[in-house]
Amino acid sequence: MHQGLFITFEGPEGAGKSTQARRLYERLQAAGYPVILTREPGGTRIGELIRRILVDLRHTEMAPTTETLLFSAARAQLVSELIRPYLATGGIVICDRYADSTFAYQGYGLGRDLDELRAITAVATGGLKPDLTFYLRIDVEVGLQRKRAGRERPEANSGQPVEWNRLDARDLAYHQRVAQGFAELMAQEPERWYALDADQPLDVLAEQIWQAVTPRLARITPIAAQGSAD
Amino acid sequence: MHQGLFITFEGPEGAGKSTQARRLYERLQAAGYPVILTREPGGTRIGELIRRILVDLRHTEMAPTTETLLFSAARAQLVSELIRPYLATGGIVICDRYADSTFAYQGYGLGRDLDELRAITAVATGGLKPDLTFYLRIDVEVGLQRKRAGRERPEANSGQPVEWNRLDARDLAYHQRVAQGFAELMAQEPERWYALDADQPLDVLAEQIWQAVTPRLARITPIAAQGSAD
Repeated sequence: MHQGLFITFEGPEGAGKSTQARRLYERLQAAGYPVILTREPGGTRIGELIRRILVDLRHTEMAPTTETLLFSAARAQLVSELIRPYLATGGIVICDRYADSTFAYQGYGLGRDLDELRAITAVATGGLKPDLTFYLRIDVEVGLQRKRAGRERPEANSGQPVEWNRLDARDLAYHQRVAQGFAELMAQEPERWYALDADQPLDVLAEQIWQAVTPRLARITPIAAQGSAD
Repeated sequence: MHQGLFITFEGPEGAGKSTQARRLYERLQAAGYPVILTREPGGTRIGELIRRILVDLRHTEMAPTTETLLFSAARAQLVSELIRPYLATGGIVICDRYADSTFAYQGYGLGRDLDELRAITAVATGGLKPDLTFYLRIDVEVGLQRKRAGRERPEANSGQPVEWNRLDARDLAYHQRVAQGFAELMAQEPERWYALDADQPLDVLAEQIWQAVTPRLARITPIAAQGSAD
């Protein structure tokens, strides 16, 4: 497939995906590995414009099919413009959410036909799958409370600004269906997933993630070594 | 399928689709028929936001798959929010471009896989097809010259402002493949298409279109008659 390493983070809202994705990114960078950190939807100029349409709380009239196609459009751009080229150079790509979110949120959450979603996703990604996916498991209610708290008091979220958007505002039952969807996705491809208990101290979680990643680094050439080969 | 009448206009750039779509709309309205005029991509608040991303000349990095998915997202919203509900009330919907443009431009023009396009289009439209499609045929070079002239001198285009966008800026060979694509689409479903020579006086063309539409109006209840039934 590719020379690089493609790592994604998935999980319900408020589980700390973005924090852990960033910590892994910083640790890999500090260790001299070629690595980029990106996110879905967004991650490219065109993708960020699409993201703005998707998260706008005023867009209550958005049809479920529109939502699916917009996520897929942003993903297609990210894969084509950033992920594939970077993997082709032998680099590591860390992505905060990827296609599994489509299946969990649009499929299991909103009841969209899973075969249709698979067909659209295959077009959008050209079949590119992650090598490794971390699932940060957290109780849905706790996660939503965390995210709401973070929105009202940014200091409750390690000082990071928190986006509270149209997709978070759906009801609890929806988020529970999403969590169940992730469980089914993991059961289908257990070798790709690492499920971790997100309700642990950040450092403990970061270390578990690092331990899962290090065996995969053998095939990645550090930047320093690349430089010395010139 | 539906009680209403779904009419689309297709053809290369500069053939006068928008002008003829508007004339048909005005004539139907004057005759008391329930009718709306819309366009692709766009036609809804969300669709117009998607349109802005699509036509932006600066977006040279847009991947073909992204383009296809964005057109489909705008279409899904238009069908769901506007076209289907209006047809369900027994009204007439006139749309300036629809799914055939995807096959012609992305498929034949850019070489995207036609089966993939059909799959995505089926998702976006839920299978909704026009009852009647007008194809305004014009020599590709003449059409592009017309549109360029209209951009530089708005008075050359009946005083209407003309959008000159990222999609028009492609080369002549591309627009020729698009025209050939439309020819193949017409050959596949001759009963749905009316091909007209766009190089005729506007009034002549408008009358030909009107003559093709009138036999289909028997099943549409004029607004005046609807009102008197209350």
